[in-house]
Amino acid sequence: MTQLPSGRTRVLGIVGDPVVQVGAPAIWTALFRDQGLDAVCVPAHVRPEDLAQFLAGAARWQNLDGLIVTIPHKITAATLATELSTRADRVGAVNVLRPDGASGWTGDILDGVGLVAALTSDGRPLRDRRALVVGSGGVGTAVAHALGESGVADLAVSDLDPARALTLARRLTQLGYPAHVAEPVAAGFDVVVNCSPAGMRAEDDLPIDLDGTGPGTTVADAVAHPPVTRLLRLARERGCWVVPGGRMMHAQVPDQAEFFGYGRLHTPDRG
Amino acid sequence: MTQLPSGRTRVLGIVGDPVVQVGAPAIWTALFRDQGLDAVCVPAHVRPEDLAQFLAGAARWQNLDGLIVTIPHKITAATLATELSTRADRVGAVNVLRPDGASGWTGDILDGVGLVAALTSDGRPLRDRRALVVGSGGVGTAVAHALGESGVADLAVSDLDPARALTLARRLTQLGYPAHVAEPVAAGFDVVVNCSPAGMRAEDDLPIDLDGTGPGTTVADAVAHPPVTRLLRLARERGCWVVPGGRMMHAQVPDQAEFFGYGRLHTPDRG
Repeated sequence: MTQLPSGRTRVLGIVGDPVVQVGAPAIWTALFRDQGLDAVCVPAHVRPEDLAQFLAGAARWQNLDGLIVTIPHKITAATLATELSTRADRVGAVNVLRPDGASGWTGDILDGVGLVAALTSDGRPLRDRRALVVGSGGVGTAVAHALGESGVADLAVSDLDPARALTLARRLTQLGYPAHVAEPVAAGFDVVVNCSPAGMRAEDDLPIDLDGTGPGTTVADAVAHPPVTRLLRLARERGCWVVPGGRMMHAQVPDQAEFFGYGRLHTPDRG
Repeated sequence: MTQLPSGRTRVLGIVGDPVVQVGAPAIWTALFRDQGLDAVCVPAHVRPEDLAQFLAGAARWQNLDGLIVTIPHKITAATLATELSTRADRVGAVNVLRPDGASGWTGDILDGVGLVAALTSDGRPLRDRRALVVGSGGVGTAVAHALGESGVADLAVSDLDPARALTLARRLTQLGYPAHVAEPVAAGFDVVVNCSPAGMRAEDDLPIDLDGTGPGTTVADAVAHPPVTRLLRLARERGCWVVPGGRMMHAQVPDQAEFFGYGRLHTPDRG
Protein backbone atom coordinates (compact mmCIF):
# COMPACT_ATOMS: atom_id res chain seq x y z
CA MET A 1 0.00 0.00 0.00
CA THR A 2 0.97 3.58 -0.53
CA GLN A 3 2.59 5.69 2.19
CA LEU A 4 0.35 8.63 1.22
CA PRO A 5 -3.26 9.00 2.40
CA SER A 6 -6.07 8.70 -0.15
CA GLY A 7 -9.80 9.39 -0.22
CA ARG A 8 -10.31 5.91 1.27
CA THR A 9 -8.03 6.45 4.27
CA ARG A 10 -9.56 5.87 7.71
CA VAL A 11 -8.66 8.31 10.47
CA LEU A 12 -7.92 7.84 14.16
CA GLY A 13 -7.58 11.02 16.22
CA ILE A 14 -5.94 11.88 19.51
CA VAL A 15 -7.50 14.83 21.29
CA GLY A 16 -5.75 16.81 24.03
CA ASP A 17 -4.67 20.25 25.25
CA PRO A 18 -1.76 20.48 24.69
CA VAL A 19 -1.30 17.74 22.13
CA VAL A 20 2.21 18.46 20.77
CA GLN A 21 3.77 15.99 23.25
CA VAL A 22 1.77 12.89 22.24
CA GLY A 23 3.42 9.90 20.62
CA ALA A 24 0.20 8.30 19.32
CA PRO A 25 0.22 9.78 15.77
CA ALA A 26 3.62 8.19 14.97
CA ILE A 27 3.00 4.97 16.92
CA TRP A 28 -0.40 4.26 15.38
CA THR A 29 0.43 5.38 11.84
CA ALA A 30 3.50 3.10 11.87
CA LEU A 31 1.35 0.28 13.22
CA PHE A 32 -1.26 0.78 10.47
CA ARG A 33 1.49 0.64 7.83
CA ASP A 34 3.01 -2.50 9.32
CA GLN A 35 -0.42 -4.14 9.19
CA GLY A 36 -1.25 -2.88 5.69
CA LEU A 37 -4.20 -0.82 6.98
CA ASP A 38 -5.02 2.36 5.03
CA ALA A 39 -5.38 4.56 8.10
CA VAL A 40 -3.58 7.49 9.72
CA CYS A 41 -3.51 8.87 13.27
CA VAL A 42 -3.63 12.66 13.59
CA PRO A 43 -3.52 15.03 16.57
CA ALA A 44 -6.44 17.30 17.45
CA HIS A 45 -5.63 20.22 19.72
CA VAL A 46 -8.96 21.11 21.34
CA ARG A 47 -9.47 23.46 24.30
CA PRO A 48 -11.54 22.28 27.30
CA GLU A 49 -14.38 24.73 26.59
CA ASP A 50 -14.57 23.42 23.00
CA LEU A 51 -14.62 19.68 23.68
CA ALA A 52 -18.39 19.14 23.61
CA GLN A 53 -18.76 20.99 20.30
CA PHE A 54 -15.75 19.22 18.81
CA LEU A 55 -17.05 15.76 19.76
CA ALA A 56 -20.53 16.53 18.43
CA GLY A 57 -18.93 17.43 15.09
CA ALA A 58 -16.45 14.56 14.96
CA ALA A 59 -19.32 12.11 15.54
CA ARG A 60 -20.55 13.02 12.02
CA TRP A 61 -17.20 12.12 10.42
CA GLN A 62 -18.01 8.76 8.78
CA ASN A 63 -14.41 7.57 8.23
CA LEU A 64 -13.20 8.50 11.72
CA ASP A 65 -12.66 5.22 13.58
CA GLY A 66 -12.35 6.82 16.98
CA LEU A 67 -10.48 9.15 19.29
CA ILE A 68 -7.80 8.61 21.89
CA VAL A 69 -8.54 11.08 24.70
CA THR A 70 -5.74 12.62 26.71
CA ILE A 71 -5.21 15.34 29.34
CA PRO A 72 -7.26 17.35 30.29
CA HIS A 73 -10.30 15.84 28.53
CA LYS A 74 -10.67 12.34 30.05
CA ILE A 75 -13.27 13.19 32.69
CA THR A 76 -15.32 15.61 30.57
CA ALA A 77 -15.30 13.16 27.67
CA ALA A 78 -16.85 10.51 29.95
CA THR A 79 -19.73 12.85 30.72
CA LEU A 80 -20.21 13.46 26.97
CA ALA A 81 -20.18 9.77 25.96
CA THR A 82 -23.56 8.17 25.31
CA GLU A 83 -22.36 4.73 26.46
CA LEU A 84 -19.62 3.73 28.92
CA SER A 85 -17.96 0.42 29.80
CA THR A 86 -18.46 -0.68 33.44
CA ARG A 87 -14.82 0.22 34.02
CA ALA A 88 -15.17 3.71 32.54
CA ASP A 89 -18.38 4.25 34.46
CA ARG A 90 -16.64 3.34 37.74
CA VAL A 91 -13.60 5.47 36.99
CA GLY A 92 -15.68 8.36 35.65
CA ALA A 93 -13.20 8.91 32.82
CA VAL A 94 -12.43 7.64 29.32
CA ASN A 95 -9.26 7.55 27.26
CA VAL A 96 -10.82 6.04 24.12
CA LEU A 97 -14.02 6.91 22.28
CA ARG A 98 -15.54 5.24 19.24
CA PRO A 99 -18.69 6.18 17.29
CA ASP A 100 -21.79 4.48 18.75
CA GLY A 101 -23.52 4.32 15.36
CA ALA A 102 -26.05 7.04 16.22
CA SER A 103 -23.94 10.23 16.24
CA GLY A 104 -22.80 9.60 19.80
CA TRP A 105 -19.75 8.01 21.45
CA THR A 106 -18.98 4.79 23.31
CA GLY A 107 -16.17 5.23 25.85
CA ASP A 108 -13.75 3.02 27.74
CA ILE A 109 -10.72 3.64 29.95
CA LEU A 110 -7.66 1.50 29.21
CA ASP A 111 -4.98 3.42 31.11
CA GLY A 112 -5.23 1.08 34.10
CA VAL A 113 -5.16 -2.02 31.89
CA GLY A 114 -1.96 -0.73 30.30
CA LEU A 115 -0.37 0.07 33.63
CA VAL A 116 -1.12 -3.33 35.12
CA ALA A 117 0.28 -5.06 32.04
CA ALA A 118 3.44 -2.91 32.24
CA LEU A 119 3.83 -3.30 36.04
CA THR A 120 3.55 -7.07 35.99
CA SER A 121 6.02 -7.41 33.11
CA ASP A 122 8.75 -7.77 35.77
CA GLY A 123 7.19 -11.18 36.51
CA ARG A 124 5.95 -10.21 39.99
CA PRO A 125 2.15 -10.24 40.46
CA LEU A 126 0.52 -7.20 42.06
CA ARG A 127 -1.50 -9.26 44.55
CA ASP A 128 -0.53 -8.44 48.17
CA ARG A 129 1.79 -5.56 47.23
CA ARG A 130 1.39 -2.10 48.73
CA ALA A 131 0.69 0.61 46.14
CA LEU A 132 0.74 4.43 46.11
CA VAL A 133 -0.94 6.37 43.29
CA VAL A 134 -0.12 10.08 43.10
CA GLY A 135 -2.62 12.20 41.19
CA SER A 136 -6.38 11.57 41.39
CA GLY A 137 -7.43 12.84 37.96
CA GLY A 138 -8.46 10.70 35.01
CA VAL A 139 -5.31 8.56 34.78
CA GLY A 140 -4.83 8.26 38.54
CA THR A 141 -8.42 7.16 39.04
CA ALA A 142 -8.11 4.55 36.26
CA VAL A 143 -4.82 3.25 37.61
CA ALA A 144 -6.11 3.07 41.20
CA HIS A 145 -9.17 1.07 40.09
CA ALA A 146 -7.01 -1.33 38.05
CA LEU A 147 -4.63 -1.82 40.99
CA GLY A 148 -7.58 -2.46 43.29
CA GLU A 149 -8.91 -5.02 40.85
CA SER A 150 -5.47 -6.66 40.75
CA GLY A 151 -5.66 -7.41 44.48
CA VAL A 152 -3.08 -5.06 46.00
CA ALA A 153 -2.92 -5.25 49.83
CA ASP A 154 -2.79 -1.50 50.36
CA LEU A 155 -4.02 1.22 48.00
CA ALA A 156 -2.94 4.75 48.93
CA VAL A 157 -4.05 7.71 46.83
CA SER A 158 -2.70 11.23 46.89
CA ASP A 159 -3.41 14.54 45.18
CA LEU A 160 -2.41 18.20 45.47
CA ASP A 161 -6.15 18.70 46.11
CA PRO A 162 -6.87 16.57 49.23
CA ALA A 163 -10.62 16.64 48.60
CA ARG A 164 -10.11 15.04 45.19
CA ALA A 165 -7.97 12.27 46.73
CA LEU A 166 -10.59 11.70 49.44
CA THR A 167 -13.38 11.38 46.88
CA LEU A 168 -11.35 8.79 45.01
CA ALA A 169 -10.47 6.85 48.18
CA ARG A 170 -14.16 6.70 49.14
CA ARG A 171 -15.19 5.36 45.72
CA LEU A 172 -12.46 2.71 45.91
CA THR A 173 -13.49 1.72 49.43
CA GLN A 174 -17.10 1.31 48.29
CA LEU A 175 -15.85 -1.26 45.77
CA GLY A 176 -14.11 -3.17 48.59
CA TYR A 177 -10.56 -2.06 47.81
CA PRO A 178 -8.17 -1.25 50.75
CA ALA A 179 -7.96 2.45 49.89
CA HIS A 180 -6.98 5.51 51.92
CA VAL A 181 -5.52 8.98 51.36
CA ALA A 182 -1.77 9.45 51.86
CA GLU A 183 1.01 11.99 51.37
CA PRO A 184 3.05 11.61 48.13
CA VAL A 185 5.85 9.81 49.99
CA ALA A 186 7.11 6.50 48.63
CA ALA A 187 8.57 5.02 51.83
CA GLY A 188 6.78 1.83 52.81
CA PHE A 189 5.28 1.11 49.39
CA ASP A 190 6.28 -1.60 46.88
CA VAL A 191 4.69 0.06 43.85
CA VAL A 192 4.60 3.83 43.32
CA VAL A 193 2.90 5.44 40.31
CA ASN A 194 2.93 9.09 39.28
CA CYS A 195 -0.35 9.89 37.56
CA SER A 196 -0.06 13.65 37.95
CA PRO A 197 1.13 15.80 35.03
CA ALA A 198 4.22 16.86 37.05
CA GLY A 199 7.32 15.99 35.07
CA MET A 200 6.07 17.07 31.64
CA ARG A 201 8.04 20.33 32.00
CA ALA A 202 11.67 20.50 33.14
CA GLU A 203 10.82 23.05 35.83
CA ASP A 204 8.12 20.89 37.48
CA ASP A 205 8.54 19.87 41.12
CA LEU A 206 9.22 16.18 41.75
CA PRO A 207 5.72 14.69 42.32
CA ILE A 208 6.83 11.98 44.80
CA ASP A 209 9.35 11.89 47.66
CA LEU A 210 11.54 8.87 46.86
CA ASP A 211 13.32 8.62 50.25
CA GLY A 212 13.35 5.02 51.43
CA THR A 213 12.94 3.43 47.97
CA GLY A 214 15.42 0.94 46.54
CA PRO A 215 15.78 -2.27 44.53
CA GLY A 216 12.53 -3.64 46.01
CA THR A 217 10.47 -0.71 44.73
CA THR A 218 8.74 -0.35 41.37
CA VAL A 219 8.36 3.29 40.24
CA ALA A 220 6.09 4.03 37.28
CA ASP A 221 5.30 7.35 35.61
CA ALA A 222 2.27 8.03 33.47
CA VAL A 223 4.07 11.02 31.90
CA ALA A 224 5.26 9.83 28.49
CA HIS A 225 7.10 12.95 27.35
CA PRO A 226 9.96 13.30 28.17
CA PRO A 227 10.43 9.51 27.76
CA VAL A 228 12.36 9.33 31.06
CA THR A 229 11.20 11.90 33.60
CA ARG A 230 13.34 13.26 36.44
CA LEU A 231 11.33 11.07 38.83
CA LEU A 232 12.32 7.93 36.91
CA ARG A 233 15.95 9.02 36.57
CA LEU A 234 16.25 9.49 40.35
CA ALA A 235 14.40 6.21 41.00
CA ARG A 236 16.75 4.36 38.69
CA GLU A 237 19.73 5.87 40.53
CA ARG A 238 18.29 4.35 43.72
CA GLY A 239 18.10 0.93 42.10
CA CYS A 240 14.31 0.88 41.71
CA TRP A 241 12.69 -0.98 38.81
CA VAL A 242 11.20 1.81 36.63
CA VAL A 243 8.29 1.77 34.18
CA PRO A 244 8.20 4.78 31.84
CA GLY A 245 4.96 6.31 30.52
CA GLY A 246 5.79 5.15 27.02
CA ARG A 247 5.72 1.52 28.14
CA MET A 248 2.34 2.02 29.88
CA MET A 249 1.05 3.50 26.64
CA HIS A 250 2.44 0.72 24.43
CA ALA A 251 1.07 -1.91 26.80
CA GLN A 252 -2.49 -0.75 26.19
CA VAL A 253 -2.22 -0.59 22.38
CA PRO A 254 -3.64 -4.11 21.79
CA ASP A 255 -6.72 -3.28 23.88
CA GLN A 256 -7.14 0.10 22.19
CA ALA A 257 -6.80 -1.49 18.73
CA GLU A 258 -9.49 -4.02 19.62
CA PHE A 259 -11.74 -1.26 20.96
CA PHE A 260 -11.43 0.73 17.70
CA GLY A 261 -12.20 -2.35 15.61
CA TYR A 262 -8.73 -2.95 14.13
CA GLY A 263 -8.32 -6.35 15.79
CA ARG A 264 -5.78 -7.04 18.54
CA LEU A 265 -2.72 -5.24 17.10
CA HIS A 266 0.59 -5.16 18.98
CA THR A 267 3.28 -2.52 18.65
CA PRO A 268 6.63 -3.99 17.56
CA ASP A 269 8.42 -2.94 20.79
CA ARG A 270 5.93 -4.86 22.90
CA GLY A 271 7.25 -8.03 21.25
CA MET B 1 11.47 15.64 8.59
CA THR B 2 9.85 12.38 9.47
CA GLN B 3 7.31 10.68 7.21
CA LEU B 4 5.13 9.89 10.22
CA PRO B 5 2.77 12.41 11.83
CA SER B 6 3.53 13.70 15.33
CA GLY B 7 1.69 15.67 17.99
CA ARG B 8 2.84 18.84 16.20
CA THR B 9 1.42 17.88 12.80
CA ARG B 10 -1.00 20.36 11.19
CA VAL B 11 -4.04 18.95 9.43
CA LEU B 12 -5.82 19.91 6.21
CA GLY B 13 -9.13 18.16 5.53
CA ILE B 14 -11.19 17.49 2.44
CA VAL B 15 -14.88 17.07 3.12
CA GLY B 16 -17.29 15.41 0.67
CA ASP B 17 -19.95 12.71 0.19
CA PRO B 18 -18.64 10.45 -1.21
CA VAL B 19 -14.99 11.23 -0.57
CA VAL B 20 -13.25 7.99 -1.65
CA GLN B 21 -12.61 9.41 -5.14
CA VAL B 22 -10.66 12.53 -4.11
CA GLY B 23 -7.00 12.98 -4.97
CA ALA B 24 -6.35 15.79 -2.48
CA PRO B 25 -5.02 13.68 0.44
CA ALA B 26 -2.16 12.27 -1.66
CA ILE B 27 -1.50 15.49 -3.63
CA TRP B 28 -1.35 17.74 -0.57
CA THR B 29 0.50 15.34 1.72
CA ALA B 30 3.17 14.85 -0.97
CA LEU B 31 3.35 18.63 -1.41
CA PHE B 32 3.79 19.18 2.34
CA ARG B 33 6.62 16.64 2.39
CA ASP B 34 8.34 18.23 -0.60
CA GLN B 35 8.19 21.57 1.19
CA GLY B 36 9.29 20.21 4.57
CA LEU B 37 5.97 21.15 6.19
CA ASP B 38 4.80 18.92 9.06
CA ALA B 39 1.22 18.59 7.82
CA VAL B 40 -1.07 15.91 6.44
CA CYS B 41 -4.24 16.02 4.33
CA VAL B 42 -7.02 13.60 5.36
CA PRO B 43 -10.45 12.82 3.92
CA ALA B 44 -13.64 13.50 5.87
CA HIS B 45 -16.73 11.69 4.68
CA VAL B 46 -19.64 13.78 5.96
CA ARG B 47 -23.30 13.42 4.93
CA PRO B 48 -25.24 16.53 3.80
CA GLU B 49 -27.48 16.52 6.88
CA ASP B 50 -24.39 16.44 9.11
CA LEU B 51 -22.36 19.23 7.50
CA ALA B 52 -23.40 22.09 9.82
CA GLN B 53 -22.64 20.06 12.95
CA PHE B 54 -19.35 18.79 11.51
CA LEU B 55 -18.17 22.31 10.60
CA ALA B 56 -19.15 23.69 14.02
CA GLY B 57 -17.01 20.98 15.61
CA ALA B 58 -14.06 21.25 13.21
CA ALA B 59 -13.89 25.00 13.89
CA ARG B 60 -12.72 24.10 17.43
CA TRP B 61 -9.81 22.00 16.13
CA GLN B 62 -6.84 24.31 16.74
CA ASN B 63 -4.31 22.57 14.46
CA LEU B 64 -6.72 22.22 11.53
CA ASP B 65 -5.53 24.67 8.85
CA GLY B 66 -8.67 24.42 6.78
CA LEU B 67 -10.97 22.30 4.66
CA ILE B 68 -11.27 21.69 0.96
CA VAL B 69 -14.99 21.37 0.22
CA THR B 70 -16.24 19.08 -2.51
CA ILE B 71 -19.51 17.68 -3.86
CA PRO B 72 -22.24 17.94 -2.56
CA HIS B 73 -21.28 20.47 0.14
CA LYS B 74 -20.08 23.56 -1.78
CA ILE B 75 -23.33 25.53 -1.69
CA THR B 76 -24.36 24.59 1.86
CA ALA B 77 -20.86 25.36 3.13
CA ALA B 78 -21.17 28.89 1.70
CA THR B 79 -24.32 29.46 3.73
CA LEU B 80 -22.49 28.20 6.85
CA ALA B 81 -19.39 30.38 6.40
CA THR B 82 -19.19 33.52 8.54
CA GLU B 83 -17.20 35.41 5.90
CA LEU B 84 -17.07 35.02 2.09
CA SER B 85 -14.81 36.45 -0.61
CA THR B 86 -16.62 38.65 -3.17
CA ARG B 87 -16.19 35.81 -5.65
CA ALA B 88 -17.68 33.20 -3.31
CA ASP B 89 -20.52 35.55 -2.44
CA ARG B 90 -21.35 36.03 -6.14
CA VAL B 91 -21.12 32.33 -6.90
CA GLY B 92 -22.97 31.32 -3.73
CA ALA B 93 -20.56 28.43 -3.15
CA VAL B 94 -17.17 27.72 -1.58
CA ASN B 95 -14.57 25.04 -2.20
CA VAL B 96 -12.15 26.15 0.52
CA LEU B 97 -12.76 27.10 4.16
CA ARG B 98 -10.28 28.33 6.75
CA PRO B 99 -10.85 29.17 10.43
CA ASP B 100 -11.85 32.83 10.87
CA GLY B 101 -10.23 33.04 14.32
CA ALA B 102 -13.56 33.14 16.16
CA SER B 103 -14.88 29.56 15.78
CA GLY B 104 -16.32 30.35 12.34
CA TRP B 105 -15.15 29.90 8.76
CA THR B 106 -13.92 32.16 5.95
CA GLY B 107 -14.76 30.79 2.52
CA ASP B 108 -13.59 31.25 -1.06
CA ILE B 109 -14.26 29.50 -4.37
CA LEU B 110 -11.19 28.72 -6.47
CA ASP B 111 -12.66 26.21 -8.95
CA GLY B 112 -13.14 28.87 -11.61
CA VAL B 113 -9.64 30.27 -11.07
CA GLY B 114 -8.24 26.77 -11.60
CA LEU B 115 -10.30 26.18 -14.71
CA VAL B 116 -9.32 29.45 -16.35
CA ALA B 117 -5.64 28.75 -15.61
CA ALA B 118 -5.99 25.27 -17.12
CA LEU B 119 -8.02 26.42 -20.15
CA THR B 120 -5.61 29.17 -21.10
CA SER B 121 -2.58 26.88 -20.77
CA ASP B 122 -3.00 26.13 -24.50
CA GLY B 123 -1.83 29.69 -25.08
CA ARG B 124 -5.19 30.90 -26.42
CA PRO B 125 -6.91 33.60 -24.33
CA LEU B 126 -10.60 33.09 -23.49
CA ARG B 127 -11.61 36.60 -24.58
CA ASP B 128 -14.12 36.50 -27.46
CA ARG B 129 -14.54 32.73 -27.42
CA ARG B 130 -17.95 31.06 -27.12
CA ALA B 131 -18.33 28.90 -24.00
CA LEU B 132 -20.82 26.27 -22.82
CA VAL B 133 -20.92 25.22 -19.16
CA VAL B 134 -22.95 22.08 -18.38
CA GLY B 135 -24.07 21.72 -14.76
CA SER B 136 -25.22 24.71 -12.71
CA GLY B 137 -24.26 23.52 -9.23
CA GLY B 138 -21.33 24.75 -7.18
CA VAL B 139 -18.56 24.04 -9.70
CA GLY B 140 -20.62 25.07 -12.74
CA THR B 141 -21.57 28.37 -11.13
CA ALA B 142 -17.93 29.08 -10.19
CA VAL B 143 -16.69 28.18 -13.66
CA ALA B 144 -19.37 30.26 -15.40
CA HIS B 145 -18.50 33.32 -13.29
CA ALA B 146 -14.77 32.88 -14.00
CA LEU B 147 -15.43 32.52 -17.74
CA GLY B 148 -17.62 35.65 -17.67
CA GLU B 149 -14.85 37.55 -15.91
CA SER B 150 -12.39 36.31 -18.56
CA GLY B 151 -14.37 38.09 -21.28
CA VAL B 152 -15.94 35.24 -23.27
CA ALA B 153 -18.20 36.43 -26.12
CA ASP B 154 -20.98 33.94 -25.38
CA LEU B 155 -21.73 32.20 -22.08
CA ALA B 156 -24.26 29.36 -22.33
CA VAL B 157 -25.27 27.44 -19.22
CA SER B 158 -27.14 24.15 -19.03
CA ASP B 159 -28.50 21.86 -16.33
CA LEU B 160 -30.74 18.80 -16.05
CA ASP B 161 -32.89 21.13 -13.93
CA PRO B 162 -33.78 24.01 -16.33
CA ALA B 163 -34.86 26.27 -13.45
CA ARG B 164 -31.39 25.99 -11.90
CA ALA B 165 -29.74 26.92 -15.21
CA LEU B 166 -32.12 29.88 -15.62
CA THR B 167 -31.32 31.17 -12.12
CA LEU B 168 -27.61 31.01 -12.94
CA ALA B 169 -28.05 32.71 -16.33
CA ARG B 170 -29.97 35.58 -14.69
CA ARG B 171 -27.28 36.12 -12.06
CA LEU B 172 -24.58 36.16 -14.75
CA THR B 173 -26.60 38.60 -16.87
CA GLN B 174 -26.95 40.93 -13.89
CA LEU B 175 -23.16 41.09 -13.73
CA GLY B 176 -23.05 42.11 -17.41
CA TYR B 177 -21.94 38.73 -18.80
CA PRO B 178 -23.44 37.49 -22.14
CA ALA B 179 -25.27 34.57 -20.52
CA HIS B 180 -28.22 32.43 -21.61
CA VAL B 181 -29.62 28.93 -21.07
CA ALA B 182 -28.83 26.26 -23.67
CA GLU B 183 -29.11 22.53 -24.30
CA PRO B 184 -26.01 20.44 -23.46
CA VAL B 185 -24.96 20.37 -27.11
CA ALA B 186 -21.40 21.37 -28.00
CA ALA B 187 -21.94 22.36 -31.65
CA GLY B 188 -21.13 26.05 -32.19
CA PHE B 189 -19.00 26.49 -29.06
CA ASP B 190 -15.22 26.92 -28.79
CA VAL B 191 -14.98 25.92 -25.15
CA VAL B 192 -17.15 23.25 -23.52
CA VAL B 193 -16.92 22.38 -19.83
CA ASN B 194 -18.67 19.56 -17.98
CA CYS B 195 -19.33 20.68 -14.42
CA SER B 196 -21.97 18.03 -13.69
CA PRO B 197 -21.05 14.88 -11.72
CA ALA B 198 -21.89 12.72 -14.78
CA GLY B 199 -18.84 10.65 -15.68
CA MET B 200 -17.82 9.71 -12.13
CA ARG B 201 -19.45 6.30 -12.62
CA ALA B 202 -18.92 4.11 -15.70
CA GLU B 203 -22.68 3.75 -16.23
CA ASP B 204 -23.34 7.52 -16.31
CA ASP B 205 -24.85 9.04 -19.47
CA LEU B 206 -22.58 11.29 -21.51
CA PRO B 207 -23.28 14.80 -20.12
CA ILE B 208 -22.66 16.66 -23.42
CA ASP B 209 -23.49 15.92 -27.07
CA LEU B 210 -20.13 16.27 -28.86
CA ASP B 211 -21.47 16.28 -32.44
CA GLY B 212 -19.84 19.07 -34.45
CA THR B 213 -16.74 19.37 -32.26
CA GLY B 214 -13.21 18.98 -33.60
CA PRO B 215 -9.66 20.32 -33.42
CA GLY B 216 -10.93 23.87 -32.83
CA THR B 217 -12.84 22.86 -29.68
CA THR B 218 -11.55 22.75 -26.12
CA VAL B 219 -13.38 20.19 -23.95
CA ALA B 220 -12.81 20.29 -20.18
CA ASP B 221 -14.23 18.05 -17.47
CA ALA B 222 -14.46 18.95 -13.78
CA VAL B 223 -14.75 15.23 -12.92
CA ALA B 224 -11.30 14.20 -11.67
CA HIS B 225 -11.94 10.51 -11.06
CA PRO B 226 -11.59 8.62 -13.37
CA PRO B 227 -8.66 10.78 -14.58
CA VAL B 228 -9.92 10.61 -18.17
CA THR B 229 -13.71 10.40 -18.40
CA ARG B 230 -15.62 8.91 -21.33
CA LEU B 231 -16.47 12.47 -22.42
CA LEU B 232 -12.79 13.37 -22.69
CA ARG B 233 -11.90 10.11 -24.44
CA LEU B 234 -14.55 10.73 -27.10
CA ALA B 235 -13.51 14.39 -27.42
CA ARG B 236 -9.90 13.38 -27.90
CA GLU B 237 -10.96 10.93 -30.65
CA ARG B 238 -12.57 13.91 -32.42
CA GLY B 239 -9.31 15.87 -32.22
CA CYS B 240 -10.47 18.29 -29.53
CA TRP B 241 -7.99 19.77 -27.04
CA VAL B 242 -8.98 18.21 -23.70
CA VAL B 243 -8.48 19.43 -20.13
CA PRO B 244 -8.99 16.72 -17.46
CA GLY B 245 -10.38 17.43 -14.01
CA GLY B 246 -7.05 16.59 -12.43
CA ARG B 247 -5.40 19.47 -14.31
CA MET B 248 -8.15 21.90 -13.22
CA MET B 249 -7.55 20.76 -9.66
CA HIS B 250 -3.75 21.06 -9.85
CA ALA B 251 -4.05 24.49 -11.45
CA GLN B 252 -5.79 25.88 -8.37
CA VAL B 253 -3.35 24.42 -5.82
CA PRO B 254 -1.16 27.58 -5.58
CA ASP B 255 -4.24 29.69 -4.82
CA GLN B 256 -5.56 27.16 -2.32
CA ALA B 257 -2.16 26.94 -0.58
CA GLU B 258 -2.07 30.72 -0.28
CA PHE B 259 -5.63 30.74 1.08
CA PHE B 260 -4.74 28.18 3.79
CA GLY B 261 -1.64 30.16 4.81
CA TYR B 262 1.03 27.80 3.42
CA GLY B 263 2.38 30.34 0.94
CA ARG B 264 2.03 29.98 -2.82
CA LEU B 265 2.94 26.28 -3.23
CA HIS B 266 2.94 24.63 -6.65
CA THR B 267 2.42 20.93 -7.34
CA PRO B 268 5.38 19.38 -9.20
CA ASP B 269 3.28 18.48 -12.28
CA ARG B 270 2.24 22.10 -12.71
CA GLY B 271 5.90 22.81 -13.42
